[in-house]
Amino acid sequence: MGTRHGHTRDLLLIRGGTVVTAQASFRVDVLCGGEGEILAVGPDLDRPTGCTVVDAGGLLVMPGGVDPQVGIGADEAGFARTVAALSGGTTTILDTMRPDGSGLDAAWRDWRHAARHAHVDVGLHMALPDASASVLRHMDELVADRGVNAFRLSMADGLSDRDILQLTRHAADYGALCMIEAQNAQAVAYLRAELDHAGITGNEACLLSAPPQVEGEAVGRAIMLAGLAGGPVHVGPVSTIGATDILARARLRGQRVEGHVLAPHLVVDEAVYDPEGDAASDPCVTLPPFRDGTHRRALWGGLASGNIGMVASGFRPSGAAGNGVTDGLAQRMRVVWQHGVRGGTLTAEEFVAVTSQAAARAFNIYPRKGAIMPGADADIVLWDPDALETCTSGLYAGITLGGRAVRVIRGGVTVWQDDMPCEGVGYGAYVPCPAFRPGLSERMRRAAHLSMRDGEIQDRGPGAC
Amino acid sequence: MGTRHGHTRDLLLIRGGTVVTAQASFRVDVLCGGEGEILAVGPDLDRPTGCTVVDAGGLLVMPGGVDPQVGIGADEAGFARTVAALSGGTTTILDTMRPDGSGLDAAWRDWRHAARHAHVDVGLHMALPDASASVLRHMDELVADRGVNAFRLSMADGLSDRDILQLTRHAADYGALCMIEAQNAQAVAYLRAELDHAGITGNEACLLSAPPQVEGEAVGRAIMLAGLAGGPVHVGPVSTIGATDILARARLRGQRVEGHVLAPHLVVDEAVYDPEGDAASDPCVTLPPFRDGTHRRALWGGLASGNIGMVASGFRPSGAAGNGVTDGLAQRMRVVWQHGVRGGTLTAEEFVAVTSQAAARAFNIYPRKGAIMPGADADIVLWDPDALETCTSGLYAGITLGGRAVRVIRGGVTVWQDDMPCEGVGYGAYVPCPAFRPGLSERMRRAAHLSMRDGEIQDRGPGAC
Amino acid sequence: MGTRHGHTRDLLLIRGGTVVTAQASFRVDVLCGGEGEILAVGPDLDRPTGCTVVDAGGLLVMPGGVDPQVGIGADEAGFARTVAALSGGTTTILDTMRPDGSGLDAAWRDWRHAARHAHVDVGLHMALPDASASVLRHMDELVADRGVNAFRLSMADGLSDRDILQLTRHAADYGALCMIEAQNAQAVAYLRAELDHAGITGNEACLLSAPPQVEGEAVGRAIMLAGLAGGPVHVGPVSTIGATDILARARLRGQRVEGHVLAPHLVVDEAVYDPEGDAASDPCVTLPPFRDGTHRRALWGGLASGNIGMVASGFRPSGAAGNGVTDGLAQRMRVVWQHGVRGGTLTAEEFVAVTSQAAARAFNIYPRKGAIMPGADADIVLWDPDALETCTSGLYAGITLGGRAVRVIRGGVTVWQDDMPCEGVGYGAYVPCPAFRPGLSERMRRAAHLSMRDGEIQDRGPGAC
Amino acid sequence: MGTRHGHTRDLLLIRGGTVVTAQASFRVDVLCGGEGEILAVGPDLDRPTGCTVVDAGGLLVMPGGVDPQVGIGADEAGFARTVAALSGGTTTILDTMRPDGSGLDAAWRDWRHAARHAHVDVGLHMALPDASASVLRHMDELVADRGVNAFRLSMADGLSDRDILQLTRHAADYGALCMIEAQNAQAVAYLRAELDHAGITGNEACLLSAPPQVEGEAVGRAIMLAGLAGGPVHVGPVSTIGATDILARARLRGQRVEGHVLAPHLVVDEAVYDPEGDAASDPCVTLPPFRDGTHRRALWGGLASGNIGMVASGFRPSGAAGNGVTDGLAQRMRVVWQHGVRGGTLTAEEFVAVTSQAAARAFNIYPRKGAIMPGADADIVLWDPDALETCTSGLYAGITLGGRAVRVIRGGVTVWQDDMPCEGVGYGAYVPCPAFRPGLSERMRRAAHLSMRDGEIQDRGPGAC
Repeated sequence: MGTRHGHTRDLLLIRGGTVVTAQASFRVDVLCGGEGEILAVGPDLDRPTGCTVVDAGGLLVMPGGVDPQVGIGADEAGFARTVAALSGGTTTILDTMRPDGSGLDAAWRDWRHAARHAHVDVGLHMALPDASASVLRHMDELVADRGVNAFRLSMADGLSDRDILQLTRHAADYGALCMIEAQNAQAVAYLRAELDHAGITGNEACLLSAPPQVEGEAVGRAIMLAGLAGGPVHVGPVSTIGATDILARARLRGQRVEGHVLAPHLVVDEAVYDPEGDAASDPCVTLPPFRDGTHRRALWGGLASGNIGMVASGFRPSGAAGNGVTDGLAQRMRVVWQHGVRGGTLTAEEFVAVTSQAAARAFNIYPRKGAIMPGADADIVLWDPDALETCTSGLYAGITLGGRAVRVIRGGVTVWQDDMPCEGVGYGAYVPCPAFRPGLSERMRRAAHLSMRDGEIQDRGPGAC
Repeated sequence: MGTRHGHTRDLLLIRGGTVVTAQASFRVDVLCGGEGEILAVGPDLDRPTGCTVVDAGGLLVMPGGVDPQVGIGADEAGFARTVAALSGGTTTILDTMRPDGSGLDAAWRDWRHAARHAHVDVGLHMALPDASASVLRHMDELVADRGVNAFRLSMADGLSDRDILQLTRHAADYGALCMIEAQNAQAVAYLRAELDHAGITGNEACLLSAPPQVEGEAVGRAIMLAGLAGGPVHVGPVSTIGATDILARARLRGQRVEGHVLAPHLVVDEAVYDPEGDAASDPCVTLPPFRDGTHRRALWGGLASGNIGMVASGFRPSGAAGNGVTDGLAQRMRVVWQHGVRGGTLTAEEFVAVTSQAAARAFNIYPRKGAIMPGADADIVLWDPDALETCTSGLYAGITLGGRAVRVIRGGVTVWQDDMPCEGVGYGAYVPCPAFRPGLSERMRRAAHLSMRDGEIQDRGPGAC
Repeated sequence: MGTRHGHTRDLLLIRGGTVVTAQASFRVDVLCGGEGEILAVGPDLDRPTGCTVVDAGGLLVMPGGVDPQVGIGADEAGFARTVAALSGGTTTILDTMRPDGSGLDAAWRDWRHAARHAHVDVGLHMALPDASASVLRHMDELVADRGVNAFRLSMADGLSDRDILQLTRHAADYGALCMIEAQNAQAVAYLRAELDHAGITGNEACLLSAPPQVEGEAVGRAIMLAGLAGGPVHVGPVSTIGATDILARARLRGQRVEGHVLAPHLVVDEAVYDPEGDAASDPCVTLPPFRDGTHRRALWGGLASGNIGMVASGFRPSGAAGNGVTDGLAQRMRVVWQHGVRGGTLTAEEFVAVTSQAAARAFNIYPRKGAIMPGADADIVLWDPDALETCTSGLYAGITLGGRAVRVIRGGVTVWQDDMPCEGVGYGAYVPCPAFRPGLSERMRRAAHLSMRDGEIQDRGPGAC
Repeated sequence: MGTRHGHTRDLLLIRGGTVVTAQASFRVDVLCGGEGEILAVGPDLDRPTGCTVVDAGGLLVMPGGVDPQVGIGADEAGFARTVAALSGGTTTILDTMRPDGSGLDAAWRDWRHAARHAHVDVGLHMALPDASASVLRHMDELVADRGVNAFRLSMADGLSDRDILQLTRHAADYGALCMIEAQNAQAVAYLRAELDHAGITGNEACLLSAPPQVEGEAVGRAIMLAGLAGGPVHVGPVSTIGATDILARARLRGQRVEGHVLAPHLVVDEAVYDPEGDAASDPCVTLPPFRDGTHRRALWGGLASGNIGMVASGFRPSGAAGNGVTDGLAQRMRVVWQHGVRGGTLTAEEFVAVTSQAAARAFNIYPRKGAIMPGADADIVLWDPDALETCTSGLYAGITLGGRAVRVIRGGVTVWQDDMPCEGVGYGAYVPCPAFRPGLSERMRRAAHLSMRDGEIQDRGPGAC
């Protein structure tokens, strides 16, 4: 028996599998226990007395997935649905809080309370409604006291370019990161009105009102603004070749930019919005919409090259605020395994990077999450690489999924096995996301100003591509 | 004696020069007269009885310059200063009206009245303050009745993306063109405030508050919005490699985009904003600011490749509204001759294109302006290609100018000679700019919508670069 | 009766049509005659005594087409087939001579002799087999004495990069232009061998052995080498988005680069190489092969933006040396009218540019060819803009053509009318292509070397994209 | 006491430092011993009996550096000079064998013999002279039996495009990687001859004969060829913004491409080739030459974004074959620390990636090298992050270096301390580089062919940028 957060756990020895991390693959054993962490990793580990042995022969042993964009709402029932995430190998989600009029801290309390019903570990991001003094002040508190190190800025929610500049700068000054949901809301609304006028009101309007260049423009603007503010920035979801290219260009010029993609954008084609079959596309109505093969290939290239670091589910229960899809919490990793690894685009190590490690690193919870090493949380998925399944309904209808989470261990305890949750699956923990190193912004700002004078900046922003 | 607008003119036979147009150079003579137009062009023209012969031996005979961005104000004294334009070979200006509270048509009347004091021919564009129903209605009147076919939209004047979409579409529907002054005003203001806070308030702040990527972003956005609206668009002034590349990219993908550059951006370096010599840089304070060699080379490449079609002076008398420079009406063509043609970047034909023909074509007054062919206005400059002069003060202090307008003919009458205005130089005419073909927008819109459905649009906008 | 080259011709007055040039459209009349040139252009021209009047009501009056890449061979029967060019509105071809072992001048004599059987005017380019001293010497003679100002270098014919450097430099020094047929022949051969090995030997192998990136690489290399040599360069045919982008990029950075596309690449899809219907694709086997819509759209964008200046037929009789297509001399202009002008991508003026004027300017025979102005050759096509026809067989099977050459005038004489050649259609003239201005290369070379030292060159070549 | 390769070592406990890996930084201790590997990593490790404790307080504890491009020659004295590498924190080099006429295996034997005099661990790559059957056969032997998994192809050594296609394919089929030294040798020779002709023969000729676009072209071609062959490829050294952009573009489109930069290209300016101070630039004569700030900033951006994975010294003793610099083995890591980490471009973790981990992963010796984890070789450098030094002569004259290797441990034994080698510094081991997974090429080839048919490949190669 060990303890975690005060409770001791049984020891668990995972034997005979191939451990896959984002760096390499090894034939090693993994010993879990203590307070729910990994105790040892190595070849042919001795079995301590009383330790349960798990046979991982023929399986891959990987860090539990980290899903970096979920929008459940302050809703206990919503968090209870995260058992689906477990079924697909995901053991941690990063949920976005969307405050109503009661303020940021109230939102945090509501979410924190509801999240106790989650079956996965939960970290929290905060959507910001404006750049008022009150919001700025509460941002600092959330960073300092609440374990929130990332703020979500939606350009569609009325945040002006000035707001984005102020919030990005402020966040950087306080060791936090801004994630910008980049959309040109006025352009989308204009096109939507025009489509309405033309009588095009079915699901295809979600595609026609958000053409690719609108996303590209907004992503470019978000990155440019963050560069001016001297702060790191995360953009996403990105769904187009244009946005991917702009993001990659900024990175290539040395700007600190990360991004994510939603799993369905990797595999669902825009043909789903066929006006003839409207009902079937209901689960696919989202912003950004799904695209054609040119865009999907670009997203995969972005993942393979590390320019788009991570894949989220974008799950949002029907009725919850924000954008996203009302399905797909369970399929995220299998989509990537089948169409990325089996499709020949990604290695198994890169699979771990994009489904787990990169998100953990981006939100400063690595190596607690996203790693298999002594001291890391014992969140582990035993993965059958050869399993295959084709979805018959919902978001992924007709899409083949690959791989299967044979056993899922969360905090050293097996919580999913035999295609069902284990008895006493229990609840996940809250994962505070520590602040990033302070002062980064100051250095970047200084660099930016100096470079304005000596011409260095000229080719750094997206405007220069 | 001939007539122009009812008045007959003397016949003028220009002999022995090399006629240079945007297409080719010829050893031909030019006969002017009638009502001020060109009567004949050909080798060894006969001299009609009573015709004055002008010896153009050793000189180039080129269309009078057309300056596409000037902002004089509804000010008689301002228009009187256009004698400087004549001195530099420019015979037509396109001035931007900026309405005050009295409305668009009142502005047109004021400008039209003041422009009677211009020594060059004058066409008028209208800056638009908003996208209200009243503005839209008056746009139509200006196009239909007043000879205004271009509207200037300044993103710095509070026009939202939605306004730009509506105005661009409306203009296209009525056969007019929108010219977008692309700036991210909020970003510039943010940086300006930050510089103020840091005590940087000298002329260098004009450089530091408008870094290149801010312009690139805004130009990209303007082009994307025009593409959505299905209208042609003109952007400028552009001053950066980023903006140039975005403009060129959109053109390469088939979008109808034109642009212009201001002559000083082609030759004045950002080093002029040296904080040690502040007073000297006073004439250089403008938005966009002058840039370094990387940007200048890109602007020249833009001209040579035809992506940036034309060079304006950007002249704006001190105190007049809008951006621009308070000097430079006289030097525009000599800057381009010296640093473009003599510098080896442009041919003489391309010189005519960027200083005269392209602007005439863009604003639908070609071949009345910008051409040497029978029927065209007899606006002609006799150019000494070998003259050289170095400016000693003002905007172009230290810059070498090349070429010289030995004689300038406006409407068949010699108005500038021997480095001074001719006696009775008189006034230029108003040049109505006819509406473009109607229905363009409808076709583009249809194309846009179709292409949204079949994926064609994906790589057309700047977002895709 | 009038004369041309000593013979007087009847006067011909074309009345009531809309003259379209590359610059503008006018409601003017055109008077042809003298020695076969245009005598006057203007509104409501008087009818000289004895002059035949042609009613052009409802028709467009455009310069006869100039087809810049044809490879007929020194073959009288081949040249006799040029009556097909006339039927499509083309009045001048630029044919490529391919010398056998007898040397360059012998080739010129052979071609010049055979070309007397052409029904269109003919200019000649020369393919170069190597960079030997003998070839260099004969190049000079061809330029000085034979009216040849362009040389064709095929990278597939064993010319090394060193050869291309030497030939481009030498040509520039002597006022001539190199046209590079850019292919990576070793890569194509490698893929072809591999396909053979896999048993893929049908027409689809022509597509699979020449993937787009092979062309992009070779075009980029050709442009880079020409830039080093300090000479202008023409590349083509280009068939891919990659090659188009590289060409446009070099132009945008100020390099003197032109290019052309073959008409079939604008409209025929790669699906034609379907292995199931092999025989039907026989006329489509060529290098470069036809591509998919992404590439075609890029080629159209290249034309609309002026980056790809001109459209050739690429006609080469079956059995003649070189690449090309064995069909299509007649359809070139109608392909562009239908899919470019009617498709909304090009204006009528741009149609004249890409089918006639640009080639004339590029090969220094403008305004003799490609223009409607006094003094130009009276090569004129009366065009019915509304005609429509769908090809039923051959290269363009299933493709719709638009417009129709109602009457074709060559050197002031009507040679095609009522869908058939006129009695006594006669033969075209040889069109010597004059040398370009000398010394260009020296200036470019000096510029190149200086810029190497001050960093200017860094972003000029294709390597910098 | 422990053993390594049969010999036991003393235990060494590194306490109180901050362990920095490419993924994260930790306050943990490291226990080394056994046969020279790392035994444990964790907080507050117990001190085993008889274990030596190393106080790392205030220091960073990082994996020993891996230098991926060195060209020493089969020369014992050359390898003895690797004590300089130790002094700079590098514990492993990857040396390129250049066979003379005696064949590949003889070269391997010679190098293996000479390398026994190296003070660092040594892995070996093999330069290939041609694509003959004999070479292909010996490649396989080297991979299977000799621990050589990478082959170096110099486009300057007479390898044709066909050779590169064959060698890249063959290497991939046998689990090896090709590293292409991309140069257009004919272009460089042409320019060199021209400079000679102009009397420019000083060190500046090394700059003027290899302008940036020549490198860009060759890198693009190398990547395109590798893509056709279906094999992964490594290019380098890259020195220009153009090459960096092409490499990044190919990665972004999903191609497997890696690259490296030489440390001096990151900091030495082209101004060093000033003809006035020729002798001082002698150590800087190399191909590719050093460049200006635009290129250097692009290289740093390439490193920060992961597109250029690693930094080599490029050390080559005077007189040895191949390109490189005759100095700089000791300064590689300090250059990157000072100008990358202190300059604000790289994090400490990224420093470990580019100086150690990435090379280890690229050549399949990770985590034996490049990692601090149990089982890895105990190659460790204790790094003083605050040390500063300015070079006074040689390659880096006038350049500031940052950081200092306070203690260097190789295979669990301290070999460098107090700025001098330890008594009995001894020799490094041979590091066999295992073959990569077989069959990669087959999959890539299949993918390539399929994609040719469905259009997927169109935007994957560098030709498409």
